[in-house]
Amino acid sequence: MEAFNNYLKQFPKYTPKVFEMVLPYLTEQTIELGDFFLPQGKICRSIAYIETGLLRLYYLNDGKEVTNCFCKENTITTSYSSLITNRESEIAIQAIEDSKLIILPYVALQELYEKDLFWQQLGRLAAESEFVTTECHHRFLRDQSATERYRQILENENDLLQRVPLNYIASYLQIAPETLSRIRKKIART
Amino acid sequence: MEAFNNYLKQFPKYTPKVFEMVLPYLTEQTIELGDFFLPQGKICRSIAYIETGLLRLYYLNDGKEVTNCFCKENTITTSYSSLITNRESEIAIQAIEDSKLIILPYVALQELYEKDLFWQQLGRLAAESEFVTTECHHRFLRDQSATERYRQILENENDLLQRVPLNYIASYLQIAPETLSRIRKKIART
Repeated sequence: MEAFNNYLKQFPKYTPKVFEMVLPYLTEQTIELGDFFLPQGKICRSIAYIETGLLRLYYLNDGKEVTNCFCKENTITTSYSSLITNRESEIAIQAIEDSKLIILPYVALQELYEKDLFWQQLGRLAAESEFVTTECHHRFLRDQSATERYRQILENENDLLQRVPLNYIASYLQIAPETLSRIRKKIART
Repeated sequence: MEAFNNYLKQFPKYTPKVFEMVLPYLTEQTIELGDFFLPQGKICRSIAYIETGLLRLYYLNDGKEVTNCFCKENTITTSYSSLITNRESEIAIQAIEDSKLIILPYVALQELYEKDLFWQQLGRLAAESEFVTTECHHRFLRDQSATERYRQILENENDLLQRVPLNYIASYLQIAPETLSRIRKKIART
């Protein structure tokens, strides 16, 4: 649990008290590569802090999986819309490495919101960051060519390229796996 | 200013004190049809409560205006990403009716965040709602045909159709104005 405590320390207004408040609600969960933290169509009722491992969020578009994002160790993952609206999740969350998660139920977070400004603030910062990330990703897909998109993750998220199977990278860039192969070969030649 | 006070009353934890706290920071602004609350490329530094009127948010895609959303009386508008990240706004906010706004500077909101749980909570709820609205709109554009999209706003937002020029409706549905004309004629015949 200490990793989650360290994660909380980066937020303003942290005091050891806030970790004591949340500790009784936390549980650990280990999931294996290929397992789901959340299958598509279920209502998401918790937030996962990823202590170790890697997960991907994806949705189905015309029966084809489209990867929204990758979430790695020392970050939080959840199906945000489903969590907030209490509706079935369009998004599935799947481990693509064996992962160790620390789970906080949403009902507990809502209790915490009432108890300390720290948690309201964390909720606000998380929502803001989720919004900005989603908007950036839409813009990235809309404004950049397939090659530019690949170059960008090559420059900024090279560690992901080492860890994620290429078919998931292709679905994240919203290009066919064959197109990704062609782009990779072209870039390797230059 | 009383309209803004009434707007705040809908949120949990409202007390008359929260309105007294925000009042010194508020200013009124009247903008005419066609004027900008925020031109594209400027950093957004405030939030507007729309007391009367109607505005649209749009961005440029390959030089063409794409309308993101319409904001009418008794709602809040801002360029959310620009506000939070302090970067130049990709989005422009333009009045499409003469409008009366009540302006709250973001620096003031940040001060209020420190003073009362109400404001942190309002910030969180606003961010959450912004996220869900944006995601819904992306899904709406992705999953529905042009005709379905038009039918949906015909059913759910008929008042907008009465108030908004059709070229903006077309750009909101991301279809050509001629396509919208054809759809409207087809639906009128059925």
